Amino acid sequence: MEVIKYPNRETFAHISIRPELDRHALEKTVATILEMVKKKGDLALKQYSRKFDRVDIENFQVSSKEIENGINTIPNDLKDKIKISQKNIEKFHSSQVQPTQIVETSPGVKCWRKTIPIDKVGLYVPGGSTPLFSTLLMLGVPARLAGCQEIIVCTPPNEQGFIDNTILYIAHELGIKYLFKIGGAQAIAAMAFGTESVPHVYKIFGPGNQYVTVAKQLVQMQGVAIDMPAGPSEVVIIADNSANPAFIASDLLAQAEHGPDSQVLLVSIDEKMIDQVQDQLLLQLKMIPRRKIAEQALQNSKLVLVKDIDTAIELINTYAPEHLILSVSDPHSISSLVKNAGSVFLGPYTPESAGDYASGTNHTLPTNRYARMYSGVSLDSFLKTITFQEISAEGLQQLGPVIQKLAERENLFGHSSSVAVRLDQLKEKNNGH
Amino acid sequence: MEVIKYPNRETFAHISIRPELDRHALEKTVATILEMVKKKGDLALKQYSRKFDRVDIENFQVSSKEIENGINTIPNDLKDKIKISQKNIEKFHSSQVQPTQIVETSPGVKCWRKTIPIDKVGLYVPGGSTPLFSTLLMLGVPARLAGCQEIIVCTPPNEQGFIDNTILYIAHELGIKYLFKIGGAQAIAAMAFGTESVPHVYKIFGPGNQYVTVAKQLVQMQGVAIDMPAGPSEVVIIADNSANPAFIASDLLAQAEHGPDSQVLLVSIDEKMIDQVQDQLLLQLKMIPRRKIAEQALQNSKLVLVKDIDTAIELINTYAPEHLILSVSDPHSISSLVKNAGSVFLGPYTPESAGDYASGTNHTLPTNRYARMYSGVSLDSFLKTITFQEISAEGLQQLGPVIQKLAERENLFGHSSSVAVRLDQLKEKNNGH
Repeated sequence: MEVIKYPNRETFAHISIRPELDRHALEKTVATILEMVKKKGDLALKQYSRKFDRVDIENFQVSSKEIENGINTIPNDLKDKIKISQKNIEKFHSSQVQPTQIVETSPGVKCWRKTIPIDKVGLYVPGGSTPLFSTLLMLGVPARLAGCQEIIVCTPPNEQGFIDNTILYIAHELGIKYLFKIGGAQAIAAMAFGTESVPHVYKIFGPGNQYVTVAKQLVQMQGVAIDMPAGPSEVVIIADNSANPAFIASDLLAQAEHGPDSQVLLVSIDEKMIDQVQDQLLLQLKMIPRRKIAEQALQNSKLVLVKDIDTAIELINTYAPEHLILSVSDPHSISSLVKNAGSVFLGPYTPESAGDYASGTNHTLPTNRYARMYSGVSLDSFLKTITFQEISAEGLQQLGPVIQKLAERENLFGHSSSVAVRLDQLKEKNNGH
Repeated sequence: MEVIKYPNRETFAHISIRPELDRHALEKTVATILEMVKKKGDLALKQYSRKFDRVDIENFQVSSKEIENGINTIPNDLKDKIKISQKNIEKFHSSQVQPTQIVETSPGVKCWRKTIPIDKVGLYVPGGSTPLFSTLLMLGVPARLAGCQEIIVCTPPNEQGFIDNTILYIAHELGIKYLFKIGGAQAIAAMAFGTESVPHVYKIFGPGNQYVTVAKQLVQMQGVAIDMPAGPSEVVIIADNSANPAFIASDLLAQAEHGPDSQVLLVSIDEKMIDQVQDQLLLQLKMIPRRKIAEQALQNSKLVLVKDIDTAIELINTYAPEHLILSVSDPHSISSLVKNAGSVFLGPYTPESAGDYASGTNHTLPTNRYARMYSGVSLDSFLKTITFQEISAEGLQQLGPVIQKLAERENLFGHSSSVAVRLDQLKEKNNGH
C-alpha cells in the first residue's frame, strides 16, 4: 500500500482519481449486445448465455418448482436472519414515505405533490461465483414498499444453469414472480427492450460489472431510466489516535475482498495509526479466504497522513467515497462536515458490513465520485412525483394578470389568452348577476 | 387535426408514440461539438457561437455593467409580477424541505438520511427568438433554496451578442454571478467539462432543443448528472360535457404555440365537445401572433373520442403526458387515477399557463412518456441524500450475528471478520471488568 504523507491540497483531486477503463472498446461491445437482444430477443439471449455464462438455457424464467426446491434447502437459522435484515430494511425505507401536503401558494391557488410508484422496474442481482442475494433484499424491499406493480429480476445462472437458492428464497418472500436466469449486458438489454420471455421495464436498478454498467448507461439513452452508474466498491476511513487499528484493518479488508478493483483509503491524522493498521492488515489478511483478491485491491490503495481533521474532511469531500467510516473520538461533530459520500458509518461499533447486510440502510450507493451529485437507492428511487394544482375563480382573478404579463414578455400570447378567456367569462358571469 | 373515434385499447400505445428524430446523425454532430469543447475550450465555444448564434463573443461571462444596464430597462410593474411568481415558486419548493429523522431499526442501531445540496449546478435557459426567462425562475429558485454553492447559467445571446434583460434581472435577483452567453450543445459541453471561462458543474438542468437534449444525454455518460431528458412540450386534456370548449381550445393553443413539434391531444367522452373545440380553435387561432407555429403543431395533434372516463384515464396513463388538464365535473375523483403525468391541472380556472409561470409548481417536466419513470424538477433535484448510521456496542452484539451469517453465505468472510474483531474485543472488555 502506498503511504502518502502530508499531501498538498492541490494533489487531492489527483488522489481522488479512480482507475479508468477503456470505455471506447467496452461501449462498442456492449452496444452490439444491446442491438442483438433488441433485434433477436430470446435467441440472442440464448447465444450470449452460452458464450458468457457457458450454459445452455431453455427457459429463462425460473419455474415455481425450482423455487420450491430451492427454498427447501435454506436452513431455518438463515431464514430467520434474512428476515431480521428484511425487517430492518423495511423499517428504514418505510420511514421515507412522504405524505401529500397541500400548499396554498397564493389565495385560491392550491398546489401539491403526490408520489406514485414506477409501474415496471427491473432489478439486476449480480451472481456467478458469489451470488449477492443481499442486493435482492436492498432493491426488492423498497420496490415492494413503493408499490411497483411489475418487478422483474435478472441474475446470472451458474454453469449448471441454476440460481443461488438464497436468491430464490428472497424472491419468494418478496412475492417476486418474474425471476430470470440472465446476466451481464444482455440482461440489461432484455429488461430495457423486452423479449419473448422477459417483460420490458421503465427503470433498471442494481450493481454489476463494467459490462452491466455500460449497458445501463447506454439504455438510458433509449427511453429507460437507471438508478445510477455504478463502479467498483470503495471505502474511506478517517481515523484519529482514538481509533482501534484492528477494527480499521478489518474494515479495509472487508472492502478489499470485494474485487481486485476495490478502492480502499485510510486518512489518518496520526502517523502511528498508519503503522499499526499496516501491521494489522498483514495479520488479518492471513485469515480471510479471499486474501488474494484483497491483496490485489490493497496494492492500489492508499494510506494518507494529514495534519488535521479539517484537511481529512477536505480530502474526502474531494474524493466523494461510496462508504465513509469515521473512526474518531467525536464522529458526530465531524459527520456534519461531510458533503460528498454515499453512506457514513459513525463510531467504533459500526462496521461498514452492517450497512451491507442488516442495519436497514441501502447498500446500492454511488461510487467513482458520483456521490457529488447522486444519492444511494432509497424508497424515492422507486417512486416518481406528480404535481397537481387547482385554482379557484377568485384565485385566477388575482394571479391571472401575473401569468399574462410574464407570458406576454416571453411572446407567448396564446398562454396569455388562455387566462384572458377565463377572466372574460368570469366578468360576464359576474355582470350577469 | 385528426379525429379518432372510439379507438381500440390495442391502439393506445400507437397513439402515444411521439414523432421520432434521426438520433444517429444528431448524436454524431453533438459528439463532435462535445469533443471540440473538451479539447479546445473557449476557442471552440467562440467558433460555435459564430457558426450557430451568428455572433462574435469576446467575453462569454456577462459583466456586472451589462447586468446593471439591463436591469434598469425592466419596468416596475414587470418586476413586481416576477416577484410574485418567484415568491410562489419559493413557497411551493420550500414546502419540500425534508427534516432529518433518526430511525432505530433495531435496538442500538440508529440510521438516518440527511439531504445535502449539490455543490455545483449548471442551468440551461433557452433563448434566441423567445428568451424563456421563466425557466431561470424555475431552476434558479430551487437551486438557491437547496443551497447549491456554485450556480452557473448558460443562455444563448441574440445576434447582437446580448442576453434578454429579463434574464439579467432574474439572475441578479437570485444572486447568480456566473451568467454566460453560450447556447446549444456547446453550452452543455462547457458546463460538463469546464473551459477557461466556464466552471464545470456536477449536474446540468434545463430544457432545450434536440441538440441540447442529446448533449445532456451524452455528457451523462461522462461523469455529469442531468435533470432528465427533455423533448417537445405536450398537453393532454380530458373533457366531459361539463367542460367549456373555449377554455379547452385556449389551452390547446397555448401548448401548440410553443413550437411546430408541440404535442396536443384532447380526449373527450362527449362527441359534441370535440366539434365545439374545433370551432373554437379556428376562432381563437386568428387571435394569436404565433398562429403559424400553432397551426403546424395542430396538424400533428389528435382529438380522441372515448366511451367513458375510465378509458380516457387508461389512454393518458399509456400516453404519459407532460401536462394533463382535467376539464371534467369531478376532477378530484379522476385525479386519483392518474399514474403517469408530469403536472396535472384541475378544474375550469386552472389553465396550464398558471404552472408555466406563476402558481409555484415547477414547469421543468418529463416529456415523451418519461413521466412513466421521471419526476419533474423539484427541490430534490438540487439535493442528494447521504445515509448515516451509528451502532452501539449492545446494538452490534445483537445485530452482529445476522451480519456475519449473511456475509458468510455470500462467501465474504472479510465482512464477517469485521464484526468478529469487534465482538471479540467487547467480550474481552466485559471479561476484564
